[in-house]
Amino acid sequence: MKRSGRRPGNQDTRTSILEVARRTFAEKGFDKASIRAIAGDAGVDPALVHHYFGTKEKLFLEVMNAPINPGELIPQALAGPREEAGIRLIRMALSVWDSPAGTAALAMFRSALSNEWTARLLREFVVTQILRRAVRELIVDPEEAPLRSALVATQIAGLMVVRYVLRLEPVASADPELLATMIGPNIQRFLDEPLD
Amino acid sequence: MKRSGRRPGNQDTRTSILEVARRTFAEKGFDKASIRAIAGDAGVDPALVHHYFGTKEKLFLEVMNAPINPGELIPQALAGPREEAGIRLIRMALSVWDSPAGTAALAMFRSALSNEWTARLLREFVVTQILRRAVRELIVDPEEAPLRSALVATQIAGLMVVRYVLRLEPVASADPELLATMIGPNIQRFLDEPLD
Repeated sequence: MKRSGRRPGNQDTRTSILEVARRTFAEKGFDKASIRAIAGDAGVDPALVHHYFGTKEKLFLEVMNAPINPGELIPQALAGPREEAGIRLIRMALSVWDSPAGTAALAMFRSALSNEWTARLLREFVVTQILRRAVRELIVDPEEAPLRSALVATQIAGLMVVRYVLRLEPVASADPELLATMIGPNIQRFLDEPLD
Repeated sequence: MKRSGRRPGNQDTRTSILEVARRTFAEKGFDKASIRAIAGDAGVDPALVHHYFGTKEKLFLEVMNAPINPGELIPQALAGPREEAGIRLIRMALSVWDSPAGTAALAMFRSALSNEWTARLLREFVVTQILRRAVRELIVDPEEAPLRSALVATQIAGLMVVRYVLRLEPVASADPELLATMIGPNIQRFLDEPLD
């Protein structure tokens, strides 16, 4: 059998960092887990963790076996004309979920629905870190970002549940563009509508 | 031990009808299961099934141990001024889910997220039967009822997921009236917005 170029020793170190990271994220959540602490528990230098995995975000995606990086996709979808951000977000979400990588994203979402650990991570990572940060760029008052991004999350999570989990027709097989047109403006309302 | 007034014989018949009904709903789904077939398999007269359980809808709710009857609640919420139907629907949903009965409703919803059988029943019963029927009364073109009610379902399911399953703040502890005001008009859009 052909061996990869990577030496076994490195592979072991990499695996043991991942194991420590998995445990640390589970115990402390995404926010409170630090590369420094993970490196310490794994008995390696923090620089080595960065060398293998890059940022904490990327280490986390590796731990979760995430096939996509929402940290890149969401801001990308929300960039561009502000008044079409809602439609672009739905269009991007559907194109990812309908792709082969979508199966794994859906598996993670399903797991979050029945597993407190995954729920917490999804909450902290996808929503608190990424979605909220992206929404903050789009709205007038940054203090409203937590509520507005959680409202956006209701519509996105619901689309995922109805189309892929409950597979309710005609949404289950509807054309993505029709769904983007129908649902996008609701996302937009969650960004723009006065909160009182 | 004190016995209830109902004679054991009747209780046995009732239980065996429920068992047959559970199996029949599981095999055929809500639509294709008939009181006549259930009665036949249980070896009783269809009139007796009606006597014990009322309609097929009520028999189904009994099988599912449903603490509430969405067949009464949803049309009730949607009655009244047409232009406020969305807000009333969200207000009603939150008042049920926040109530003690809501725990059981949430358990059923969770189960539908991981169990194909429950998913199918939820789909057929709550959405196809009840929500769709209610939506049909509110819209101009009845042929659009399937798509419009499935879109309404995305927003309602998403609210349930974010508030009760992922427990994402600030939606998890937000005032129901704020949520109704923010989300209701999106439901309304799903009823009114032209579909092309």
